[in-house]
Amino acid sequence: MKKINLDEKFEMFNEYWTPKIISELNDYQIKIAKVEGDFVWHDHSETDEFFFVIEGTLFIEFELETMELNAGELYVVPCGVKHRPFAKKECKIMLIEPRGVVNTGKASSDLTASNDVWI
Amino acid sequence: MKKINLDEKFEMFNEYWTPKIISELNDYQIKIAKVEGDFVWHDHSETDEFFFVIEGTLFIEFELETMELNAGELYVVPCGVKHRPFAKKECKIMLIEPRGVVNTGKASSDLTASNDVWI
Repeated sequence: MKKINLDEKFEMFNEYWTPKIISELNDYQIKIAKVEGDFVWHDHSETDEFFFVIEGTLFIEFELETMELNAGELYVVPCGVKHRPFAKKECKIMLIEPRGVVNTGKASSDLTASNDVWI
Repeated sequence: MKKINLDEKFEMFNEYWTPKIISELNDYQIKIAKVEGDFVWHDHSETDEFFFVIEGTLFIEFELETMELNAGELYVVPCGVKHRPFAKKECKIMLIEPRGVVNTGKASSDLTASNDVWI
């Protein structure tokens, strides 16, 4: 029975685009990531994806617009919607999605990360 | 396709212990609430419950200990675990749980709130 402090968790790693699991909610996982630079276009055909910006600015490019999410802002990308996250400077985010989701969806990429790393 | 700004959402209401839905993630709902004072002992027999403190301090009393959650801290109360949230001063929290969960579980109370209010 131990609370989770986001600042402490973010201090435990520095690599970008590698979500770390910090807790679970039924069969969903709460993850955090540091991001900077460009991610790949992808979608998740079987689930929505929750993005919440803790610090910095995250951009999410969609086919028709680009969304700017600042600290304290969130967006749930609907299932099947193609998107490409990017950040001009380091940004800290929280992600929530069902256990087992791969960060790049079906888009194979050097940025594909393990989906089973806890911190 | 509209991002959600937590500060703007929190400005839209002042009542305590009445979670408002701000988004959905598959069949889960993202809710926010302002809380102050004592809530009732309850549990949720069929789901875990995610608490994330956005501003202020939330206490969660369990049978053997009381947890103090400050801004930037979170805890997922496991399914079936009796708990009683309280806050000494106004506190802003984010909750995530499956659609349809009642805030007081099976504990009928004056604090039982509608579970279907969007803002």
